[in-house]
Amino acid sequence: MTAIFERFDVHDVRFPTSRSLDGSDAMNRDPDYSAAYVVVRTSSGEEGHGFVFTIGRGNEVAVAALRAVEHLVVGLDVDEVLSDMGGFGRLLTHDSQLRWLGPEKGVVHMAIGAVVNAVWDLLARRRGLPLWRLLSGLSPSEVAGLVDFRHLGDTLGYEEAVDILQRGSAGKDERERRLLAEGYPAYTTSAGWLGYPDEKVLALSGAALAQGFDHLKLKVGAGTDSDARRLKLVRDFVGPAVRLSVDANQAWEVAEAIEAVERLAAYGIEWVEEPTSPDDIAGHLAIARAVAPVKVATGEHVANRVVFKQLLSSGAIGVCQIDACRVAGVNENVAIMLLAAKFGVPVCPHAGGVGLCEVVQHLSMFDYVAVSGSTEGRWTEYVDHLHEHFADPVRVEGGRYRAPLRPGSGAEMLAATLEDFSFPDGPAWRERPVRP
Amino acid sequence: MTAIFERFDVHDVRFPTSRSLDGSDAMNRDPDYSAAYVVVRTSSGEEGHGFVFTIGRGNEVAVAALRAVEHLVVGLDVDEVLSDMGGFGRLLTHDSQLRWLGPEKGVVHMAIGAVVNAVWDLLARRRGLPLWRLLSGLSPSEVAGLVDFRHLGDTLGYEEAVDILQRGSAGKDERERRLLAEGYPAYTTSAGWLGYPDEKVLALSGAALAQGFDHLKLKVGAGTDSDARRLKLVRDFVGPAVRLSVDANQAWEVAEAIEAVERLAAYGIEWVEEPTSPDDIAGHLAIARAVAPVKVATGEHVANRVVFKQLLSSGAIGVCQIDACRVAGVNENVAIMLLAAKFGVPVCPHAGGVGLCEVVQHLSMFDYVAVSGSTEGRWTEYVDHLHEHFADPVRVEGGRYRAPLRPGSGAEMLAATLEDFSFPDGPAWRERPVRP
Repeated sequence: MTAIFERFDVHDVRFPTSRSLDGSDAMNRDPDYSAAYVVVRTSSGEEGHGFVFTIGRGNEVAVAALRAVEHLVVGLDVDEVLSDMGGFGRLLTHDSQLRWLGPEKGVVHMAIGAVVNAVWDLLARRRGLPLWRLLSGLSPSEVAGLVDFRHLGDTLGYEEAVDILQRGSAGKDERERRLLAEGYPAYTTSAGWLGYPDEKVLALSGAALAQGFDHLKLKVGAGTDSDARRLKLVRDFVGPAVRLSVDANQAWEVAEAIEAVERLAAYGIEWVEEPTSPDDIAGHLAIARAVAPVKVATGEHVANRVVFKQLLSSGAIGVCQIDACRVAGVNENVAIMLLAAKFGVPVCPHAGGVGLCEVVQHLSMFDYVAVSGSTEGRWTEYVDHLHEHFADPVRVEGGRYRAPLRPGSGAEMLAATLEDFSFPDGPAWRERPVRP
Repeated sequence: MTAIFERFDVHDVRFPTSRSLDGSDAMNRDPDYSAAYVVVRTSSGEEGHGFVFTIGRGNEVAVAALRAVEHLVVGLDVDEVLSDMGGFGRLLTHDSQLRWLGPEKGVVHMAIGAVVNAVWDLLARRRGLPLWRLLSGLSPSEVAGLVDFRHLGDTLGYEEAVDILQRGSAGKDERERRLLAEGYPAYTTSAGWLGYPDEKVLALSGAALAQGFDHLKLKVGAGTDSDARRLKLVRDFVGPAVRLSVDANQAWEVAEAIEAVERLAAYGIEWVEEPTSPDDIAGHLAIARAVAPVKVATGEHVANRVVFKQLLSSGAIGVCQIDACRVAGVNENVAIMLLAAKFGVPVCPHAGGVGLCEVVQHLSMFDYVAVSGSTEGRWTEYVDHLHEHFADPVRVEGGRYRAPLRPGSGAEMLAATLEDFSFPDGPAWRERPVRP
């Protein structure tokens, strides 16, 4: 009997992280890291896990969006979907009525991404492979077939995507061996949250160096004097050999960003992240021209491949920060990685939050093995919290992500977590006043 | 006793328009025009109406988003909010946790727009004025105070906004008199939906001319031969003096758009609307340069003022199509109208759907009286359906919108409509199989 997709189980999961100011930055002062979590289930008992990452209030809107996508999937033949993942992604993003709510941006797009990722998780489990290895084993034409080329036509087409992937496949086996032996470079943001006092920042920076990290990121946007003072403090502490990046989380106007980076550059910075609105391509370009050789990075809030196309083709960004849970899943991230490869811009994913490290590491590893072929100038973000809630938590050793070996995408949360942190009725929330 | 905001009443209202193919275009083949409708109520019994416009499935996600915004408003002092509408808008758009779900785009941003618009409706009722007149009576500094200048700093600041509005205020009283006497120019899309057969298009075109319209818009994107044939048919029928615009609803790649417009331009077109992705600023600019003097228009799917800033400052659009229900309400539309005024681009609002004409006409009239000071090259879209559901339906006579006189924003739907078209349990939906 043919298996069909049978239902979504959807969970509103929230962690009360605002109590400790973990994750605090210039725009996000008190996040409660959260997930609108979906388990896609089939009639034959297979399952796939995915989630929309949010920072608290509004997670229930993402839950509603997952429910709005459900009817497009339930009843589909599982084998047919798995044999044409590109077509499956386009089926969801092209639903004309849901598309109105973006188009291809915001909560509905993120929910589609969670569902696409969940079905990739299911496929990886079925094949008995970690997602990075599943993707790396696809042929160039199979990978290119995942991409929705709509509105990329002036920049990237199917044939060129296949060419990029064919070039990327030379030496694939050797890189897979190296990845398994050596892991993938990471940088850490754990030390530099805006709400942390100086002593905590220095203690955590010291701990990060001891753990083997050679690239740290600090949050800025609290005022140039304060930012410069803090950056100098850390630079003096870590010495000249460690890379430091800064992240303004969209706090600045274009001119402010240029002025701030010119001052901060004195302490040696690798990139400035989200200097202004993620929608402002022209603004990023103006900043990039003014602050070179400091690179401009963005992506965690970039809505879709069309915006990335412009950021990359214009030279507005020198670091491409894909996010596992912002765009329409693995498929759209493959499109973005191919665009980055075309323009020679390194992919350095955004991670942290809850579960973002677990999922996005697979994309970095696929990029290394089968697309860019390099780890030069590339690091995946690492933040050390909430990993204990995952069935296959990331392993970061010596400042590098160890390649995950367990089948799946890494998205699966522990059953106890789904229960304990269920909002608003789980034990973690019942014990204290429910936030508005 | 001081009045506070007490609660939102939220309705999921849908009209089964897909049965007649009203509203069909290249991307939206079977819309069921819908509204996530909100009534903001105060402890003293005042009320304000607003809505998110959608095209069917997913309207429940917009309902959830309205609920997610509610707690930010309930408990606020009504007089304080009404005396600082700019601050109120920023309070909603800057909520850090909700902002993650955009930022400033998609369902949550649209819901914030509906709430901001509802409070403007309440204020206009309290003052006993139609919204256009309330806005036109504000001072330049009061209007500029509505704008969120964040991420506009490289292009428009408060002082320049005040200057634009001061220049715009010269002759305001005379323009208000003319507006009341003559109305505001409209164009109609009623004739040109993609799903209509030729005979229906010609019959409706004839009816539109008889009603006094001198500007019609046709949907294109069904293939160049078909589009050209249809446009020629209508051009031959209406003669050379009538303006014709075309709307591709994002169906094309950049090169396709240029090729199509070059062919269609032979029949005389005023503007080409949404030739490609609304996120593709560079694509719009490339098209605009190639097809001039045909103008490029867009806006109904443009997410926020930051994207409009780039479309306008780069010359990518020659027609600025604000939408009453896509961005964060009146406040953000004021920002966009000021940007358009700065760059001398006419504002020609998107309307149609359900209720968009009723609300957006106020913004066009405010633009004429107090911002641009002109109706030259400006028309507000008009589509003749679903007006009967509104407490104060638009009056279009001789191809012009008559200025509404009733206090409020025009958003109020009839109580019977809210009941009859309630989804999925209202009589209009109970009588037939519920759509997925």
